[in-house]
Amino acid sequence: MEAYLDNCATTRVFDKVREAVDYAMLENYGNPSSKHMKGVQAEKLIREAREIIAGTLKVKDKEIVFTSGGTESNNMALIGTALAAKRRGKHIITTVMEHASIHKPLEFLEEMGYEVTYLPVDGYGHISPEELAAAVREDTILVTIMYVNNEMGAVQDMAALSAAVKAKNPNTVFHADAIQAYGKYVIRPKKEGIDLLSVSGHKIHGPKGTGFLYISEKVRLHPIIFGGGQQKDMRSGTENVPGCYGLGIAAKEIYTDHEDRIGHLYALRERLIAGLHELEGVTINGYEDRRNAPQIVSASFAGVRAEVLLHALEEESVYVSSGSACSSNHPGISGTLAAIGVKKDLLDSTIRLSFGAYTTEEQIDWTLEKLSEILPGLRRFWRH
Amino acid sequence: MEAYLDNCATTRVFDKVREAVDYAMLENYGNPSSKHMKGVQAEKLIREAREIIAGTLKVKDKEIVFTSGGTESNNMALIGTALAAKRRGKHIITTVMEHASIHKPLEFLEEMGYEVTYLPVDGYGHISPEELAAAVREDTILVTIMYVNNEMGAVQDMAALSAAVKAKNPNTVFHADAIQAYGKYVIRPKKEGIDLLSVSGHKIHGPKGTGFLYISEKVRLHPIIFGGGQQKDMRSGTENVPGCYGLGIAAKEIYTDHEDRIGHLYALRERLIAGLHELEGVTINGYEDRRNAPQIVSASFAGVRAEVLLHALEEESVYVSSGSACSSNHPGISGTLAAIGVKKDLLDSTIRLSFGAYTTEEQIDWTLEKLSEILPGLRRFWRH
Repeated sequence: MEAYLDNCATTRVFDKVREAVDYAMLENYGNPSSKHMKGVQAEKLIREAREIIAGTLKVKDKEIVFTSGGTESNNMALIGTALAAKRRGKHIITTVMEHASIHKPLEFLEEMGYEVTYLPVDGYGHISPEELAAAVREDTILVTIMYVNNEMGAVQDMAALSAAVKAKNPNTVFHADAIQAYGKYVIRPKKEGIDLLSVSGHKIHGPKGTGFLYISEKVRLHPIIFGGGQQKDMRSGTENVPGCYGLGIAAKEIYTDHEDRIGHLYALRERLIAGLHELEGVTINGYEDRRNAPQIVSASFAGVRAEVLLHALEEESVYVSSGSACSSNHPGISGTLAAIGVKKDLLDSTIRLSFGAYTTEEQIDWTLEKLSEILPGLRRFWRH
Repeated sequence: MEAYLDNCATTRVFDKVREAVDYAMLENYGNPSSKHMKGVQAEKLIREAREIIAGTLKVKDKEIVFTSGGTESNNMALIGTALAAKRRGKHIITTVMEHASIHKPLEFLEEMGYEVTYLPVDGYGHISPEELAAAVREDTILVTIMYVNNEMGAVQDMAALSAAVKAKNPNTVFHADAIQAYGKYVIRPKKEGIDLLSVSGHKIHGPKGTGFLYISEKVRLHPIIFGGGQQKDMRSGTENVPGCYGLGIAAKEIYTDHEDRIGHLYALRERLIAGLHELEGVTINGYEDRRNAPQIVSASFAGVRAEVLLHALEEESVYVSSGSACSSNHPGISGTLAAIGVKKDLLDSTIRLSFGAYTTEEQIDWTLEKLSEILPGLRRFWRH
């Protein structure tokens, strides 16, 4: 038995995605910019993928720009807005609980003379629409907020947050980092007041190195990568046809029988949480019910170091994450967990278990069984 | 019979590359930043690819940074140098004959207050080391030159050009856009005085959406994409493991039996040129001998419009390019061809035929046969 419970870090691709990628690598391998048939056929794959993705969001095809992944999408949203709007203002609002691919581009923009406001969150990781509105100024060009938090699964009411922003300043661009939300929620940017939305392929069983940015046709964005003018000049570079096509197929799959998929994830989550409560000294961070995202359980184990627990589980072929794997080259105490008020002595005792389409009830039971075997020994070790 | 003669636009992947990509998508699918075994195993694939690539250039592993392709590599080299060196100066030198993924980032930098000098080329597409040296100033932070031209295959003596630059200003960073050169030439950045070198995966039968930038350890570069700190903070974002690994395998393949591979390409080139000379009104642009790159034939057909010829050949399953496919969404007369002095009435009558590992002599003969059948009719049509 193997239990890969690190699906928020990355996922195995769907078999149909592999088929799509192989098809575009071996048979339909043209350059979409080529004027001959091989180019036209490759362009068709890009168009098909774009149509599928736009359909999942009920937006226009031309509002989807393919990128090399969630990090590039976030960089493009932030730096692209900053470059396009610098004459209108240089103030940006975010929260203390964003991913590094938001915080780091913002640090860069701060060096370039932009001003960033970091809003706090409450004990469940929520941002207050009132506090957000109070922070919006005439020169606020951008608000960027994570739709689903990657460490503990807090879900924001994006429609309420956007409405609060727009009521104060209708020109402020509202960006959603939806990297952990897309595929888990039915997202409607137009209804939710989202102008820009970042998505990553490899979080939804699509290929690594793929992603997209939804850019509302009402928003002006400056490109951040320049060249041959592909994708209407918004993102130059020969399109990654196998990647884009694979991403389209992944999007199609993940939104097929979507309610069943999400029901499955919640069932796994509830099974795991129920089992964790039978163990001693376990705290669940965030909501235990369906107000939390379906794929994430953040659990703190009193008296156990997360990294020790991670490696003990690894020996039983259970793969989990301590903190967020996306930035685990830069270890350190999680900003998110501290921000939601996880007690200091539990900050370093917290692991993330995250599910995907291939996760089964048996894997959850196996994980719980191994935890119950491992924990007493680890705690004894810790005390010595 | 089908003849895909547009390998400078893109190539079909090697079968071994497809196997590598599939392996990393389905089996070794972890996130290299994850601390458990699945992450460690994925990281090993990245390391293996980096070692292979560094080996082909005789540079250090840590000097290779993976990107999403040649365009990103070029953007990173140019914008990254500009950001890192802005206190030293704001002057950059390039030529009139570069790819859009050089010229467009330079336009962006010009908007940001940098100054760019565009050097002319001679009738064979060569830059004069003397003229280059004369353009170098105390505030020249960067020289960027294409190693092999993508439209007609001019090859620069990079060692001589770099030496000319460094003699004048040893602090000037020397960047080589080697996107059409890597895999065709044995490149030794250290010996040739190249500080930065851009490469694309899909030009060498590797995956689309992959590439790398060689960054000499002596050079300081500012990242242009920010986030989780992957690749020692130089290029954030979860590594495209299947892509990087596939690129490594492609690099290994292309530099295995390398002389034979290049001999094959030159044999194809010489066969095609000999055949073209038997047709009426054909001019070869650039050197006909081995001073030109092995994979490119640029040929002008008097009295025939390139696009008409391209589509006529397409009907015979012969796929060629008019101008450079990389930017063919922005049609218009080629800067390169005008720069090397192709006569005005031939500018719009020029096609590029480019070869790869899968190109055969039979395909060349088929192409020549079809050309000899098609051309008289097209010329008759043109006159009417």
